[in-house]
Amino acid sequence: MMNAEIIAVGSELLLGQIANTNAKFISNQLAELGVNVYYHTVVGDNGIRLDQAITIAESRADLIIFSGGLGPTKDDLTKETIAKHLSVELMYNQAALHSIEAFFNRLNRPMTENNRKQALVLNGSKVLVNHHGMAPGMIYEQEGRTYILLPGPPKELEPMFQFEAKPFLAKKVGGYETIKSLVLRFYGIGEAELEHKIEDLLDAQENPTIAPLASDGEVTLRITAKANSEIEAAKLISSAKTAILERVGDFQYGIDDDSLTSKAAELLMEKGLTISAAESLTAGLFQSELAEIPGISSTLVGGIVTYTEQAKIHQLGVAQEVIERHGVVSKECAMEMAVRVKQKFGTDIGVGLTGAAGPEMHDGQPVGTVWIAIVLNDEEPVAYQLKLSGMRNTNRLRAVKSTMNYLIKILKQLP
Amino acid sequence: MMNAEIIAVGSELLLGQIANTNAKFISNQLAELGVNVYYHTVVGDNGIRLDQAITIAESRADLIIFSGGLGPTKDDLTKETIAKHLSVELMYNQAALHSIEAFFNRLNRPMTENNRKQALVLNGSKVLVNHHGMAPGMIYEQEGRTYILLPGPPKELEPMFQFEAKPFLAKKVGGYETIKSLVLRFYGIGEAELEHKIEDLLDAQENPTIAPLASDGEVTLRITAKANSEIEAAKLISSAKTAILERVGDFQYGIDDDSLTSKAAELLMEKGLTISAAESLTAGLFQSELAEIPGISSTLVGGIVTYTEQAKIHQLGVAQEVIERHGVVSKECAMEMAVRVKQKFGTDIGVGLTGAAGPEMHDGQPVGTVWIAIVLNDEEPVAYQLKLSGMRNTNRLRAVKSTMNYLIKILKQLP
Repeated sequence: MMNAEIIAVGSELLLGQIANTNAKFISNQLAELGVNVYYHTVVGDNGIRLDQAITIAESRADLIIFSGGLGPTKDDLTKETIAKHLSVELMYNQAALHSIEAFFNRLNRPMTENNRKQALVLNGSKVLVNHHGMAPGMIYEQEGRTYILLPGPPKELEPMFQFEAKPFLAKKVGGYETIKSLVLRFYGIGEAELEHKIEDLLDAQENPTIAPLASDGEVTLRITAKANSEIEAAKLISSAKTAILERVGDFQYGIDDDSLTSKAAELLMEKGLTISAAESLTAGLFQSELAEIPGISSTLVGGIVTYTEQAKIHQLGVAQEVIERHGVVSKECAMEMAVRVKQKFGTDIGVGLTGAAGPEMHDGQPVGTVWIAIVLNDEEPVAYQLKLSGMRNTNRLRAVKSTMNYLIKILKQLP
Repeated sequence: MMNAEIIAVGSELLLGQIANTNAKFISNQLAELGVNVYYHTVVGDNGIRLDQAITIAESRADLIIFSGGLGPTKDDLTKETIAKHLSVELMYNQAALHSIEAFFNRLNRPMTENNRKQALVLNGSKVLVNHHGMAPGMIYEQEGRTYILLPGPPKELEPMFQFEAKPFLAKKVGGYETIKSLVLRFYGIGEAELEHKIEDLLDAQENPTIAPLASDGEVTLRITAKANSEIEAAKLISSAKTAILERVGDFQYGIDDDSLTSKAAELLMEKGLTISAAESLTAGLFQSELAEIPGISSTLVGGIVTYTEQAKIHQLGVAQEVIERHGVVSKECAMEMAVRVKQKFGTDIGVGLTGAAGPEMHDGQPVGTVWIAIVLNDEEPVAYQLKLSGMRNTNRLRAVKSTMNYLIKILKQLP
């Protein structure tokens, strides 16, 4: 069993300019490996204080992971301090030097001398390639302790940890050759309910592990398998996935980096269907979210924001009678909006969104009441009601997410 | 001169479930006071390891600030561990007990016995009232060291620090009775350029301090004054503000918690002007951002998302000739969009937004080219060009921010 400490180096952390998200990321990854993290330490760009922090960490951890301080400036002194502390020499790594030179060549800029410093590594260390920046990482072992040095920028640190340091640790901790993860993404079910439905699977988990996480109305399950071959890892993940989806498959919308929006956009493009929307409480947010996806112009034609009742009637053509009889926050109004915008824009799908976002009641309806209508081709429009309990903008965002989710369900059923 | 260490207590931090944003917040606040922060430590809900962390912190800091572990469960052991460490008794604080009881009365729920634990405070400590939760904070002094205990949830910790601990520290560090801040918000100027224009003011700063910060295309300057009276603090801030705005006032759009959107919405409502928008690359984001502001329905009527060329022509009525001659990413098309949507929706102001968000060129225009047009009443439309260099969604967001900024400038000039 390994005990880890994470030491982040950088005065910008101590000045409160950024939060230590690297420690969060690394801790989360180590939890998957079953490595205990007992302390995080943050220390500034100061050799003496860093040296003291290393001494303290050595007294309580056998895995010490450093982030930051590997860059070209004289403030960057992590590896210099560690080298001195462990009495190891720093040597130029030819591969790293080569890739730094290549980096400057690509930019067509002269490489200043201080950049060579980034290619210095602890003699005898395993060098970790930086695919997203210049400074390489390192793994060094001495007297039963493992020291891992990672660059500070998250976009460099995260892939380096995940693809180079993590497999090394998986092997070291459990004797496994490989570690693989799959994230299952759910919407429309609470974390507690989902956990309840797979309680026995969660209780019995060992390898693969199953880790639930909830945020912004979505729940994810990360399945992580350690194995001696890629095939074995894939099998372990696949059987856990099957067992989970037998129980809660109805709520799963995607995997890994999918989002509700990317999944809805992907299905729209795959099915070759065009879409338009009429939005009231969301005021364009549904369309704007779809427009985040490159290539969406093949399916998203446009739509109307009808924030006021007059706009609904005059711009969209919602019948005044419908509004008089049912109000603007109603199933009937949402359905009219969907049908009218589809007609107007000549699309295959029309979406209508209306509701009371808050902070005050709207048209006699309590805050959080939302009606979503979707009409596809010549079919009857379908409508869904939400009763949300968040603040104004959470409700607006939740309304959009739910619309994406209903759209995904409808599109998935098409041939 | 005080040296501080921040100790965050909570296993959720070590499991990587959340980042240590409390340390970021407190560090930022301490920087304003001129207090050095040399270390952050994170430790789990474990009495022995927390005790060891306190011993280490005492060897290197004379101000130790704790966050977390003040709640009602048996995992919450920060004050118990500190009490034992310092050999101080824990006593019930009547005011705190009273407010915990009142909290449960308001919720109409019975108070369980373990909640009384939250009213226990270090004997002889200054108790900090929690206006947003149940557990009070504490300031305790012993042998020349100051220990500050704060609750973990940021919405409880932040106001408690700002309004109770910070004035205490301002007095302790500098002998000042009060400390006040004002944030000036700028858009349309880079951080480097802004700093360059007020370089001498930044170099000469002492009291008040002036701290620049840049994020998401905006730059802020936080002016912080320490003084012996509110009036004196306000005077110090006011004269710094005047000196700054003489140089860069053209780029200032708001103060403190203003955002470009809230400021634009505030001015629209104040002037009693209605608005509509026709959006292409932003696909509804401009309208959706405005709709984040409660009460906006008095001014935002609605608008059209014209994502395709056909939608621009058929739904909005942009002349085909304009598109043929100038393209959809052009000054002329943006102006037509603004004028047409204003006419259609019968509003006082019309906004047109078109451009190439990326990742590919659009209509022959390079990625990042954006045209924004605004038309007010019977005036000629005005148009602005942006050349952005971000990724697709950064460009879309930047286009919306710039539109808000131009709108603010136009509205500010009105009587």
